[in-house]
Amino acid sequence: MIGYKGKRAVVTGGLGFIGSNLAIALAEAGAIVDVIDSCVESCGANEHNLDGAQGEIHVHRVDVAETLVVEPLVREADFIFNLAGEISHTDSMKRPERDLQINTVSQLHFLECCSRRAIPPRIVFASTRQIYGIPQTLPVDENHPVEPVDYNGVHNYAAEHYHWLLSRLGRIDAVILRLTNVYGQRQALHLPAQGVLGVFLRQALEGQRMRLFGDGLQLRDPIHVSDAVRAFLLAGLATVKERVINIGSGAPVSLREIAGLLSEEVGLPAPELIPFPEEYKRIDIGDYYSCIDRARAMLGWQPAMDLSEGLRETLDFYRTRRAEYYLKST
Amino acid sequence: MIGYKGKRAVVTGGLGFIGSNLAIALAEAGAIVDVIDSCVESCGANEHNLDGAQGEIHVHRVDVAETLVVEPLVREADFIFNLAGEISHTDSMKRPERDLQINTVSQLHFLECCSRRAIPPRIVFASTRQIYGIPQTLPVDENHPVEPVDYNGVHNYAAEHYHWLLSRLGRIDAVILRLTNVYGQRQALHLPAQGVLGVFLRQALEGQRMRLFGDGLQLRDPIHVSDAVRAFLLAGLATVKERVINIGSGAPVSLREIAGLLSEEVGLPAPELIPFPEEYKRIDIGDYYSCIDRARAMLGWQPAMDLSEGLRETLDFYRTRRAEYYLKST
Repeated sequence: MIGYKGKRAVVTGGLGFIGSNLAIALAEAGAIVDVIDSCVESCGANEHNLDGAQGEIHVHRVDVAETLVVEPLVREADFIFNLAGEISHTDSMKRPERDLQINTVSQLHFLECCSRRAIPPRIVFASTRQIYGIPQTLPVDENHPVEPVDYNGVHNYAAEHYHWLLSRLGRIDAVILRLTNVYGQRQALHLPAQGVLGVFLRQALEGQRMRLFGDGLQLRDPIHVSDAVRAFLLAGLATVKERVINIGSGAPVSLREIAGLLSEEVGLPAPELIPFPEEYKRIDIGDYYSCIDRARAMLGWQPAMDLSEGLRETLDFYRTRRAEYYLKST
Repeated sequence: MIGYKGKRAVVTGGLGFIGSNLAIALAEAGAIVDVIDSCVESCGANEHNLDGAQGEIHVHRVDVAETLVVEPLVREADFIFNLAGEISHTDSMKRPERDLQINTVSQLHFLECCSRRAIPPRIVFASTRQIYGIPQTLPVDENHPVEPVDYNGVHNYAAEHYHWLLSRLGRIDAVILRLTNVYGQRQALHLPAQGVLGVFLRQALEGQRMRLFGDGLQLRDPIHVSDAVRAFLLAGLATVKERVINIGSGAPVSLREIAGLLSEEVGLPAPELIPFPEEYKRIDIGDYYSCIDRARAMLGWQPAMDLSEGLRETLDFYRTRRAEYYLKST
């Protein structure tokens, strides 16, 4: 993408799933990339995620709150992509203080550091559609009430507010992407917290028959990581009219369809339907899909990857790198 | 008020301005009151605030995050009034981490503790109209967008979300009061962070000519602390239809009018108009007044105290207790 050649970009959480794909795309576009990642494995960091990356990527293994290391990096950056964070919803209910520390306290330190520059930096922040909670209307647009169903959502939303506040004060220039389910290469499929698509992909790759909670007809609007990455790149360069932008597929599909596609692809029997486990039911949100009109209008973005094709490419990626992604052989 | 006789009530921040007035009212209504207060003076705690209180009030000088002390108290409580917190907007911009610690981190610990009971407790939380930021429409109702202009607002709003989340999960039963400017007895008038009415009152009591930023025509809807206390008492007993309720006067008045009334009352010349200092201008919100229809409908509440009468009573209170409230003699 034009606009990044020779520029300096910081990617927090750059050893994680979306972060590493973004760092690679930036380097391929000619940017000099500084990855900042605390390497907390449960947050999705994987040392192999940058294996074979072309171009100039420097990895700094520190928390984003480590001002001494972080400050010189953000001072020089033309763009900051802020993807560091804990994403587990269930863990956040078991260890809320840990989630608060990672998603809010560290973000405060990081953003205070970013905001001390003479020129307010463009920061693209990775937020989540989870903050909306149970949809009151579908599709969910950016004005939908925010009613998170777990601590992770509360803490992410507080971090969104930091971005807004400092932007209103003219100290940073933020764009917030509220991402729907993202799937694709470089996800920590072995961790339980990677969302339903991550679980399906692992099961497909390990030859395990998939199980669906309830009737499996809950709608989602998953996007391939390459589309998510393009949204970040466009948001880095966009003229800001609104600071919050939904990123989703615009084409809802049921979990049963997704699991069906994957099962077929790897030659597994059709998914099994099982009763909803209590732990998940409590924080389940029913059908979900985003309105992506604002992303179309403001970023000129829309998803390019077809779901079947995206799932096939994803399976191909992991098949050749089982060990790096802790996948059992079948 | 009927409904509190013989009941146990916890009041966090109960040595502070509104908290102490509430603790006294609860004890007078026959409740057994446990005050929890970390006694951080900058937050408004004053040891004299409970001087001469009738009835049964026990004071526990700990932070609300001190689970070992707090848990037995909340376990037995019929009502929890949660007023602990830092309220300084300007300080929150200078020391954001401190504000986060007091208003969000401590609240998480406290609410987790409250939510471990078999029966979800009614918790009435003191929030602030400051979270709305600059009004986009007037009067401001509860659906107005939340766009805080300082860290204090962000952290308070995160604490609101904790109350909602745990209520949605059925672990507590919260009501959130978004308070406008409150004035009256037992405020820490000597602290700069007590809001514009606190500053005016101190100046009136110390014989100092008042100064208004700009033209002084900014509207506010101040309420007397006795009205605020009544809102808390009603919210403790209310059947919850909505969890967020604005509490304001319903009758906007300019800062110049308020300062004029006070100046007249104490025989000072009319207030002086001075240019807006940069530090305050940055976080000023212009005119503000709340829509209080929901409070009327849900709590059967409306302000009873007339502004002139309230200011006179307030002056009378402090005149006899200058030393306790660090007021210079004139």
